[in-house]
Amino acid sequence: MQFAAVDGTYLIRIEAGERVNETLTAFCRTHDIKNGYFTGIGAVDELTCGYYELTEKKYYFTDYTDMVEVVSLTGNVMQKDGEPFMHMHGVFTDTKNQAFGGHIVEMRVGVTLEVVLTPLPSAFARVPDDCVGLSLIDLSAPGHR
Amino acid sequence: MQFAAVDGTYLIRIEAGERVNETLTAFCRTHDIKNGYFTGIGAVDELTCGYYELTEKKYYFTDYTDMVEVVSLTGNVMQKDGEPFMHMHGVFTDTKNQAFGGHIVEMRVGVTLEVVLTPLPSAFARVPDDCVGLSLIDLSAPGHR
Amino acid sequence: MQFAAVDGTYLIRIEAGERVNETLTAFCRTHDIKNGYFTGIGAVDELTCGYYELTEKKYYFTDYTDMVEVVSLTGNVMQKDGEPFMHMHGVFTDTKNQAFGGHIVEMRVGVTLEVVLTPLPSAFARVPDDCVGLSLIDLSAPGHR
Repeated sequence: MQFAAVDGTYLIRIEAGERVNETLTAFCRTHDIKNGYFTGIGAVDELTCGYYELTEKKYYFTDYTDMVEVVSLTGNVMQKDGEPFMHMHGVFTDTKNQAFGGHIVEMRVGVTLEVVLTPLPSAFARVPDDCVGLSLIDLSAPGHR
Repeated sequence: MQFAAVDGTYLIRIEAGERVNETLTAFCRTHDIKNGYFTGIGAVDELTCGYYELTEKKYYFTDYTDMVEVVSLTGNVMQKDGEPFMHMHGVFTDTKNQAFGGHIVEMRVGVTLEVVLTPLPSAFARVPDDCVGLSLIDLSAPGHR
Repeated sequence: MQFAAVDGTYLIRIEAGERVNETLTAFCRTHDIKNGYFTGIGAVDELTCGYYELTEKKYYFTDYTDMVEVVSLTGNVMQKDGEPFMHMHGVFTDTKNQAFGGHIVEMRVGVTLEVVLTPLPSAFARVPDDCVGLSLIDLSAPGHR
């Protein structure tokens, strides 16, 4: 990966073969980014994404191993158990230009992935929510660093 | 809903059961946000979205009542008739990870919706455009607050 | 097209009949924007988009001539051969609200396109990468203006 800090924003280029969640998590840990948000475009050749089934409080994921365009990557970074945690949703298109996607577990870059990450000077965290069975961002806490 | 203002940006968590357009409009009114832009990810369980048929100058909307992932929410806030008005487009994925979407009228949060809203210190407004039959952003006016 | 500069961000309204890549490239040239990123929503009535076939180092594009909603436009501006170059990925929906998309070559606005462009004070450039057969953003160079 390559990156540059420009005026408080990070431009990040993730290379073919690198895993996106792993790379962004390590990046945030290294640069002490506790909160932030990002978008990205590129192409990936391995992808696990899916949806949350609220009635079962369970995620259903599908693995994809074809090269697909990342037409929209939208995500945020919050603290979870004291570590930066990525929440990423993505839209992908195949060789018929058809779109699919969902909540992203992990994906491996196939060509390049160009990410713009805006860090925020706060430290909000995800905390377990029993009603939905997931960790939701707790914005009611102070959130100071 | 919960929110936090961080360095001029609003992090907003919209709760299960809350309507997104209604919640964001009320938020902007309360916080005197006349212009801005936002992105979001999450899941909704009621949704009305569709497309504009220019030849008829008419929107065609479809109602969806299944839980779907919000894989991309992109929108802006402009003034319309003296009030903050949300223009939102979204991409959603179903339990087959297939993507659909369009211009969003309203949607109800199913699990959570995490929005990042950047306010702008201007007051541009939408004004009716007879050619297209819609209210378009008028950036030719001064736009000062 | 119309535009306004608000607090370092550009709001851009591209008009029906205008080409998006051409318009944004000319805008960046005129305003000396060498790097930046943008999102957009609207509707287009001509579109060429597709995917990159890495094994052949070749793009495959499809032309669309129906009006479609632009539900997500995500892009960045980098220098290429001394000129601003747009890299744009998009998601579009048809009259069945079905989503498709890919890497965008060009598209013509059908109703309106509302773009938020954030310029960055750097001058990173794309340079040819023989491995992937494309010009990738070189963030290893200084990138000063």
